[in-house]
Amino acid sequence: MIETIKWDDRGRILLLDQTLLPHRVKYRTLRRVDDVAKAIRTMQVRGAPAIGVTAAMGMALGALTYEPCKDGGFREYMDGVGDKLAATRPTAVNLFWAIQRMKDRIDALDGKPPGAVRRALVAEAKRILREDVSANRRLSEYGAALIKKGSTVITHCNAGSLATGGYGTALGVIRTAYRQGRVRHVFVDETRPRLQGAHLTAFELIEEKIPATLICDNSAGALMAQGRVQCAVVGADRIAANGDTANKIGTYSLAVLARAHKIPFFVAAPLSTVDFSLRSGKQIPIEERHASETTTIHGTRICPKNMPALNMAFDVTPYDLISAIVTEKGVARKPYGESLKKLRCRQGR
Amino acid sequence: MIETIKWDDRGRILLLDQTLLPHRVKYRTLRRVDDVAKAIRTMQVRGAPAIGVTAAMGMALGALTYEPCKDGGFREYMDGVGDKLAATRPTAVNLFWAIQRMKDRIDALDGKPPGAVRRALVAEAKRILREDVSANRRLSEYGAALIKKGSTVITHCNAGSLATGGYGTALGVIRTAYRQGRVRHVFVDETRPRLQGAHLTAFELIEEKIPATLICDNSAGALMAQGRVQCAVVGADRIAANGDTANKIGTYSLAVLARAHKIPFFVAAPLSTVDFSLRSGKQIPIEERHASETTTIHGTRICPKNMPALNMAFDVTPYDLISAIVTEKGVARKPYGESLKKLRCRQGR
Repeated sequence: MIETIKWDDRGRILLLDQTLLPHRVKYRTLRRVDDVAKAIRTMQVRGAPAIGVTAAMGMALGALTYEPCKDGGFREYMDGVGDKLAATRPTAVNLFWAIQRMKDRIDALDGKPPGAVRRALVAEAKRILREDVSANRRLSEYGAALIKKGSTVITHCNAGSLATGGYGTALGVIRTAYRQGRVRHVFVDETRPRLQGAHLTAFELIEEKIPATLICDNSAGALMAQGRVQCAVVGADRIAANGDTANKIGTYSLAVLARAHKIPFFVAAPLSTVDFSLRSGKQIPIEERHASETTTIHGTRICPKNMPALNMAFDVTPYDLISAIVTEKGVARKPYGESLKKLRCRQGR
Repeated sequence: MIETIKWDDRGRILLLDQTLLPHRVKYRTLRRVDDVAKAIRTMQVRGAPAIGVTAAMGMALGALTYEPCKDGGFREYMDGVGDKLAATRPTAVNLFWAIQRMKDRIDALDGKPPGAVRRALVAEAKRILREDVSANRRLSEYGAALIKKGSTVITHCNAGSLATGGYGTALGVIRTAYRQGRVRHVFVDETRPRLQGAHLTAFELIEEKIPATLICDNSAGALMAQGRVQCAVVGADRIAANGDTANKIGTYSLAVLARAHKIPFFVAAPLSTVDFSLRSGKQIPIEERHASETTTIHGTRICPKNMPALNMAFDVTPYDLISAIVTEKGVARKPYGESLKKLRCRQGR
């Protein structure tokens, strides 16, 4: 399975540049916090869990490149690093979660010698990566169990290895379910405007030889009406305490279609994607990206020069349309307010 | 308003090549029936009514280029011309309707001298074009009356001047409603895979200075959930006797979303688009086009080389999801089996 992000023990991050996929597999070497911020902002790395891991490694990189001559102390400097990384993208909560976890680690190390703090932060970032992979493997087992033998599933965007530390959330569930004979075929939404389905999910499924078909986003309804889809599995960028789920634009439309055709609609995400501080999805900030991502595909303009365009990067699927939320600690069902809280408190695996 | 197709009195068709829009406005000169068949097959002209007009002119061109030395008589030859044109695309019924109307004209002219027959067929093709434009203007008046003042409407694909003899069906309704202050803003689905919304509808709306925003097809649901859409208007490629409507892939998804948000969903089409011989939409043949239209955009491959893809060109929206079908003879409401039949029998305008 392809690695999205690696910590290089010479104190650098090796990051797969996802903007070049599927045609080129190229790792970029990130040496400075600014490189990391740019990689997140320009979507060289994307997917909520992968952004979280990258930000954690960015914090570690910040600690390694700290120069004591600067104004203020180490803690203030690290706050600044966190702010810079936090300003890259607004919707995926794993970004803020990972930065906060690194800051908490700094606080816990208060008084320790600089070398020990640096080593501990690198270790913490690597631990966040490892934990994400193992969370994905666990949630994939829970998720696969929900899928009936021989199903054709539909997924939107990319919630695979590339969107996470490894293995994937929605695509992790699909991988595991495929090995178990539960998934027979995958319909992949191309996922305009950035085409992560066509670029990334197709790439992962081809690599793993899982039978799949690329479709335009607008075909999902027709396929469901023809009885060709048995369930939908998607990832999440932020889940509110009540289960409302922000994910790639188009997820909401897919959920409405699934409901209209009585097809189960599953969200797969680690608990780090749940923002317990938000009562509902209305409070989730939705990133609006540049219109040029809508008006231009692979450098070619698809509409007249002066045509305005909209590019909401995410939408919110209300909890009511979600059949289950699959996490590394188990499966949450309605009412999500209670079930998600219970999972958070569950010990160990 | 831009002209899609013109009869040149030197016995040629001038056809706007829509595959070059919005970046180039170029008319092609069609001199032979084979040119006409190719133009329809390769979608230089598309849109059910425009295909009908083009096929009628193709029949006229066939009559003009008939050489009596060939096997069989004129009628057999013209059957062959009709078959060639009919084989280009399967879903839009206007194609077969127009060919049949030209054949009926030939039968009515039986025994007339060849020159008179040729002149009459050219006149009939030009009449089909004129009638289409005037039908669109009339249905647009009927349709506009259904839209509440100050609405933001959403449309899918292109059902404008470019899809018809002129003025348009769904876009005709929007044009007229805009002049009347009923439409304030238009959301234009880009309409993958062929991007007719981005290429053609955006082009027409920019030309006419009607305020519009291009969106990715998968954004419609989120906009509706935000209360930003008051009604949907689309065209049709074939309507069964019960009101089931085949139209560009994605129309069905849009109709399901409209229903889920209690937004009226209108179909606008001339009565020549209603196929009274089909009881329901299940009998409408749905064209499946080459997968490369899904996997490649403007010449760039968007997915791995060996990724399979699906390209259903149309889907069927069941009558139940359609709030009204707007024709040149008035507005049909449920049950469409009765109301459409009644409109067909209505005299004059």
